[in-house]
Amino acid sequence: MSRFYYAVKVEENKAWFDDHEYRHFQVMRVEEGQRIVFTDGNGALYAGIVSFARDRTTARITEKISQIERSPSQRVAVGIAHAQWDREEVLIEKGTELGVTDFYLFPSRYSKYRDINLNKVSYTLRKAIKQSENPLLPTFEKFGRLEEALALVERYPQRILLQPSSPTDLFDTRRQSGPALLFVGPEGGFHPDEVQLCIRAGFTPCSIGKRILRLETAALCGFVWATLLSSVD
Amino acid sequence: MSRFYYAVKVEENKAWFDDHEYRHFQVMRVEEGQRIVFTDGNGALYAGIVSFARDRTTARITEKISQIERSPSQRVAVGIAHAQWDREEVLIEKGTELGVTDFYLFPSRYSKYRDINLNKVSYTLRKAIKQSENPLLPTFEKFGRLEEALALVERYPQRILLQPSSPTDLFDTRRQSGPALLFVGPEGGFHPDEVQLCIRAGFTPCSIGKRILRLETAALCGFVWATLLSSVD
Repeated sequence: MSRFYYAVKVEENKAWFDDHEYRHFQVMRVEEGQRIVFTDGNGALYAGIVSFARDRTTARITEKISQIERSPSQRVAVGIAHAQWDREEVLIEKGTELGVTDFYLFPSRYSKYRDINLNKVSYTLRKAIKQSENPLLPTFEKFGRLEEALALVERYPQRILLQPSSPTDLFDTRRQSGPALLFVGPEGGFHPDEVQLCIRAGFTPCSIGKRILRLETAALCGFVWATLLSSVD
Repeated sequence: MSRFYYAVKVEENKAWFDDHEYRHFQVMRVEEGQRIVFTDGNGALYAGIVSFARDRTTARITEKISQIERSPSQRVAVGIAHAQWDREEVLIEKGTELGVTDFYLFPSRYSKYRDINLNKVSYTLRKAIKQSENPLLPTFEKFGRLEEALALVERYPQRILLQPSSPTDLFDTRRQSGPALLFVGPEGGFHPDEVQLCIRAGFTPCSIGKRILRLETAALCGFVWATLLSSVD
């Protein structure tokens, strides 16, 4: 179990926790007046004294332990075509562990699933930062169409489209420092028209080696490339 | 479902299949006299005509489609401390997908599981090569003690021990071409005495970034480093 908790709101010397977090306190047998450590998901880690008053759990902040800044130049974003939740969950969880900072979700022509439950995304992200003791909660955004998601490219100078048939190997592609955006298609890949749209938007299609990888294995390799291999600034 | 099958024995113009493969034929509704493609797991891909005689499934080989050679210099081996089967299965499956050529299994002081079922390992490897259309079946071997597994280092000039607390980052470590061996500990890591044994045997302890990764995520990062990042020979 994680060593810290997530506060939905932090103001001056007080923090608020929601029902989801209350259940975590229960599981951990946290008692009234106990010292806890928690994050605001925005890079800060606090210590405080917990209080379970009526239907509201709060903490009196006694100490700001640390503050990590979000570095815009280190953003690593992943765009994922709607897929079965089990698969999305693994990608969001592992992506967060590895350091993905932003998740974008969109439909794709070959997606068997037409939508995604944003509450599930939110709780999965929260669970993943707690698990990996990362006080920065990744952002997420849902787009109604792939074309809308393509407008994201302005923020990310490096854009990779995972495409099994591509002759370009991702791991032969030098990862520059600076913001990167990685698009992951549905099972069966993007439709050729969608690939063309992405290429016109500035994406480079890349495959991963000559092996046949399951989609989630390929996506995880992409996350490793995007999050662990950047040059030093 | 995979596009090829696995023959347990191939001799001149005939191939034999076991009960496990017979069930795969049944699932795929393969009929007597049908043309199938199969591998011997040793790099060869064949076409043949299947025959279900009594309790023995065989194929008359009509063509040798291709042959991949095992390159000793490209061996990538992984040593895994006994763990819960679910976790072992993911590591063996994903490792095979990514190109691990040899798996070594051994007990470790902090392993909660004292042994591993070699039949399960064997079927998982077989399933994984079929899934990823790889005609080279990885080898596997079980050791009774970590000390015995350490004798493996002679075959592998590059030896990495995944160790979360290590100040050396795996992805800052240049992957040389040539055989590599990666040791993955149990949940909770290796015992300090075991780490010392490994270091004396020539292993370099490496961590993966500053993040806290679940063991299987760290192991997959290690597989990516070992299988996808080697220099060109």
